[in-house]
Amino acid sequence: MPLGQRAGDKSESRYCGIETEFNDDMPQVLHQNISGGFDFVVAPLIDPSYRPSSAKNDGNGTSVPPFAASDLILSPSQWSSHVVGKISSWIDLDSENAELRRDSEDALKTEIAWASHLSLQACILPPPRATGCSNYARTVNQLLQNVSNMQLWIRLPLEQHEAVEDDAIDTNFKTSSGGRMFDSWEWWNTFRLLCEHHNQLCVALDILSSLPSINSIGRWFGEPVRAAIIHTNAFLTNARGYPCLSKGHQYLIKSFFNHTIQIILSGNLVHDISQERILPAGDDNHFEGLPIRHALRPYLDYVAYLYQSMDPLPEQERFEIGYRDFLQSPLQPLMDNLEAQTYETFEKDTVKYTQYQRAVCKALLDRIPDEKATTSTTVLMVVGAGRGPLVRASLQAAEETGRKLKVYAVEKNPNAVVTLHSLVKLEGWENIVTIISSDMRCWNAPEKADILVSELLGSFDDNELSPECLDGAQRFLKPDGISIPSSYTSYLQPITTTKLYNDVKAHKDLAHFETAYVVKLHRVARLAPPLEVFTFTHPNCSASINNERYEKLRFEIPADTGSTLVHGFAGYFDSVLYKDVHLGILPSKATPNMFSWFPIFFPLRKPIYVPAGSPIEVHMWRCCAATKVWYEWCVSSPLVSPVHNTNGRSYWVGL
Amino acid sequence: MPLGQRAGDKSESRYCGIETEFNDDMPQVLHQNISGGFDFVVAPLIDPSYRPSSAKNDGNGTSVPPFAASDLILSPSQWSSHVVGKISSWIDLDSENAELRRDSEDALKTEIAWASHLSLQACILPPPRATGCSNYARTVNQLLQNVSNMQLWIRLPLEQHEAVEDDAIDTNFKTSSGGRMFDSWEWWNTFRLLCEHHNQLCVALDILSSLPSINSIGRWFGEPVRAAIIHTNAFLTNARGYPCLSKGHQYLIKSFFNHTIQIILSGNLVHDISQERILPAGDDNHFEGLPIRHALRPYLDYVAYLYQSMDPLPEQERFEIGYRDFLQSPLQPLMDNLEAQTYETFEKDTVKYTQYQRAVCKALLDRIPDEKATTSTTVLMVVGAGRGPLVRASLQAAEETGRKLKVYAVEKNPNAVVTLHSLVKLEGWENIVTIISSDMRCWNAPEKADILVSELLGSFDDNELSPECLDGAQRFLKPDGISIPSSYTSYLQPITTTKLYNDVKAHKDLAHFETAYVVKLHRVARLAPPLEVFTFTHPNCSASINNERYEKLRFEIPADTGSTLVHGFAGYFDSVLYKDVHLGILPSKATPNMFSWFPIFFPLRKPIYVPAGSPIEVHMWRCCAATKVWYEWCVSSPLVSPVHNTNGRSYWVGL
Repeated sequence: MPLGQRAGDKSESRYCGIETEFNDDMPQVLHQNISGGFDFVVAPLIDPSYRPSSAKNDGNGTSVPPFAASDLILSPSQWSSHVVGKISSWIDLDSENAELRRDSEDALKTEIAWASHLSLQACILPPPRATGCSNYARTVNQLLQNVSNMQLWIRLPLEQHEAVEDDAIDTNFKTSSGGRMFDSWEWWNTFRLLCEHHNQLCVALDILSSLPSINSIGRWFGEPVRAAIIHTNAFLTNARGYPCLSKGHQYLIKSFFNHTIQIILSGNLVHDISQERILPAGDDNHFEGLPIRHALRPYLDYVAYLYQSMDPLPEQERFEIGYRDFLQSPLQPLMDNLEAQTYETFEKDTVKYTQYQRAVCKALLDRIPDEKATTSTTVLMVVGAGRGPLVRASLQAAEETGRKLKVYAVEKNPNAVVTLHSLVKLEGWENIVTIISSDMRCWNAPEKADILVSELLGSFDDNELSPECLDGAQRFLKPDGISIPSSYTSYLQPITTTKLYNDVKAHKDLAHFETAYVVKLHRVARLAPPLEVFTFTHPNCSASINNERYEKLRFEIPADTGSTLVHGFAGYFDSVLYKDVHLGILPSKATPNMFSWFPIFFPLRKPIYVPAGSPIEVHMWRCCAATKVWYEWCVSSPLVSPVHNTNGRSYWVGL
Repeated sequence: MPLGQRAGDKSESRYCGIETEFNDDMPQVLHQNISGGFDFVVAPLIDPSYRPSSAKNDGNGTSVPPFAASDLILSPSQWSSHVVGKISSWIDLDSENAELRRDSEDALKTEIAWASHLSLQACILPPPRATGCSNYARTVNQLLQNVSNMQLWIRLPLEQHEAVEDDAIDTNFKTSSGGRMFDSWEWWNTFRLLCEHHNQLCVALDILSSLPSINSIGRWFGEPVRAAIIHTNAFLTNARGYPCLSKGHQYLIKSFFNHTIQIILSGNLVHDISQERILPAGDDNHFEGLPIRHALRPYLDYVAYLYQSMDPLPEQERFEIGYRDFLQSPLQPLMDNLEAQTYETFEKDTVKYTQYQRAVCKALLDRIPDEKATTSTTVLMVVGAGRGPLVRASLQAAEETGRKLKVYAVEKNPNAVVTLHSLVKLEGWENIVTIISSDMRCWNAPEKADILVSELLGSFDDNELSPECLDGAQRFLKPDGISIPSSYTSYLQPITTTKLYNDVKAHKDLAHFETAYVVKLHRVARLAPPLEVFTFTHPNCSASINNERYEKLRFEIPADTGSTLVHGFAGYFDSVLYKDVHLGILPSKATPNMFSWFPIFFPLRKPIYVPAGSPIEVHMWRCCAATKVWYEWCVSSPLVSPVHNTNGRSYWVGL
């Protein structure tokens, strides 16, 4: 039974599980917990006292005792919908004891094979030991090649634990200060690197009463965390004696809900709650005719309360939910002609055109004093007019300010020009608007413009070649003329994003690792504040215009984050349309409710491990040749990556 | 004129070059130096005062002055055989000054294009600056994509230089202690990582008067060093006033000769040598009728003396020279049948069979006291008899010790059995030797053996499945019987080997990076002493035999080595044939003059950077399944690699 309804949320985080002990009578376990309000159980599949070495095969198979009950005790759909397998916690594949190591390997293989036979959706693996995890990871990596669709969730404590100072401990698990603390994220990172980022290897986090720093937790939102196991002793007690969670825990759980992470309750009833509490209406918690309340029901009720108390998803978020973490190739609006559907989508972004209208208003007022409003006509050229939204915004600005306008609408896409003609006719703008079917870079304008309006920006600002287009168009701008936008700047920030990395990797080629993608970032950890990359200003008054750029960026990741893995960089832009009117997607000052641009993502061919406290140094080039413009990028510290996209071999924008 | 003749050496290190100043009159430069005894010149191609920005194109190309003399001044073969281009040393692509940066990029591109136009074999690039090299490397990387066959040699000081303590210095160039020294190898490493190990990017080392530690120098022998530039002021002065080199320098230069690294002399005459020195007989140093001695001739003579004083290449080295750094797939002698040619080669390895004969002698003497020599017959089985060399060695041991032998020669390859029958007939061994055409693992022996002799070892000891074969054969060994070999152990050692890494990479697939190769290691830096990996003992008396193995190795690289890049691991074996008679290729105790085995090489998919003083932790698994045996390997520290060859997907040995 889902935790509740939340408008717009159809994700799996509505379902809550419970961790159970081993019990041969699985139907009973399932019935009790499902009727108790839980959606699934996390249950050991095999008697924890079973050891492969004491159940040795005599060679013909007859002496092998069954290690589990029959698969027939539940229906296939019950197994796959309601049971997550829990692998025996005694296994220790990195023990110094070779027999225990072998027994562990046998048991792990047997249990995963059994879970796979049952078509379970997932199994939870016990946490690695402080002595290392290489052999464990090697075995899991072997198994991952053959488990078809089943996920393996490695169980890890969210909170950093103390480790015994011991030479036997892998250096990976020691902090750089040589101290006694270690970071469970390091376990995960070692494990997943050994397993080469296998996309069925996921994480289940154990949540106890204390929590690490917000920055440390933040890393996990870029990792494939599937479940958070909350222990009953992580709960506080409210005034009425009922379980509740600290503010920090509440925030955490809601973040989990927002990131499609399921909650699993674990542990015993540790709150002394009187039994005569009245059942809520509609509770179907009956078993064999008697209403038996599940012992952990108060905890479940609290988790459900948290879920239900969340705000509904905002309109825009609901609209964009299908695009979350979905890689799209950036448009090539200069080289290709956009399709009608693309125009349709972007024209709906009223926020954007309102900003343009405000910018044109201000420019008109600056240019034409009130006393000349009726006598002076301002020449405004929309370069890249498309189907006309900027023409409309400009005319509205003229109306709003009472200024007279003469508009040239320059558009290179002959298909858009057709619609533009129809719009001008329909609106009766024939006397004001002249339509020019031409590329702005080669049009011979009959007169010079006071104002040049364009919307040529991409997610990373210059990546749709706005600089090259406007450099070409500024020939017909008056010396004191205004360009709207007047400048724009790109920004970059390092991120952890296992999901996107694996999606890029799935193509199994170099080119996809050297391509930038437009993507609605969601399962992402933003590791450091964005830094400025390239800025372009229009009109460009340099004697010789050079749009090549090179910038070296040095990101400082907050020290309490811990170590991280950087999969690539998120890119944004912010543009000054005119004076204080700006437009952009830089998170700290993004134009609200604007949907025309998702961020851009520059992947790294191999993720870079950044130890706690290390800065990360990134180089970004914008290169230009006769027929194309492209970016190259690399990391030079703490490790050196190859230069990506050499000579624009994988990704470029055509001029 | 080559430095001299050295038996067996046909490498390019016989040729010596000289660095010259810029001179428009290249024919004169060439004539003077070639007639002076040098084989090639390292010459600037372009006037060092030329700056692209002050030679701006006016748009139609007419005002561009020629930046160099015509290509016609030398013949194409003169350009390519005798000239190495020297790129202008003023270029600084990582300057804070954007104009200098752009000028440098323009100049570098122009000069490389010119050198490429002249079909030069190589150009020497100036060293990077202490402020960083990312933009320099990015530009070189772009150029490398288009220079067809020309090599680019980045010039670097061999000795560590002092760097100014400055925030502008890249963190890569700081030592871990934050001190003032930096290591020029780090420059190279950063540069080549940014250029993604491009195989035309090489190194030219500047040799000055002081030298770093032997271990630090040793790293360079795994790198693509093409030339060593020795400065005249690195020379000492001998009693007669002539230039000579320190012992350390002599050793270094000879090592360069041995690693196909060419010497280039640079600098002015700094030794005051009287002009009346008598010319050696046969000197053809004449110019325009007058004998003019080249100013640097005394230095060249000394270098030639060093070359000529080297020992001739040993016989075995000359035989194996064609195999240097040549990757071969290991044999699959169990799954496949060897070819006659393979038997032929290995049977020639007399050293190996002498060791076997010694081992059999000792075993016979131990087993049969003198008084029973004529009465007792020892049953000896050669398992894997091939075409009979071990049968012969065993019979010779019997003759040598006066013991009576009954030999069974078991061989699974029916083709080898044919030759074996002919050998037995030819030698008249019919009464002593019984030939069994069968796989030892399934043969039903008519009696039990006293001694089991086999030669089933591979370069990495168990990699041709000796354990599995001998486990199968030991059924017919008497309880107190002897196996020759009685045990064997594999060893591993981390190495730098750019050459092999690039050869593996050239295949552009995963499988070749997950395969072990047999290879005569030459251009290799051995970074730490080999450590033991797996040991097998025969006969194996365990109740249940398990030939799976797992070993974690921790290599300590000597602290004075500096940082290194590990491309993979060299593997060796050492076996105890019987008591003190051993056989093996472990460098510290290799059996001399034995050529049957080259080392094995386990590559890493991505080389691992190991900072100075960090140990490297490696995991090695031997995995067994019903039809195959394979290795998996990974690095867990200082960085984590993926597990290689999961489930033997790329490389395995068939049972």
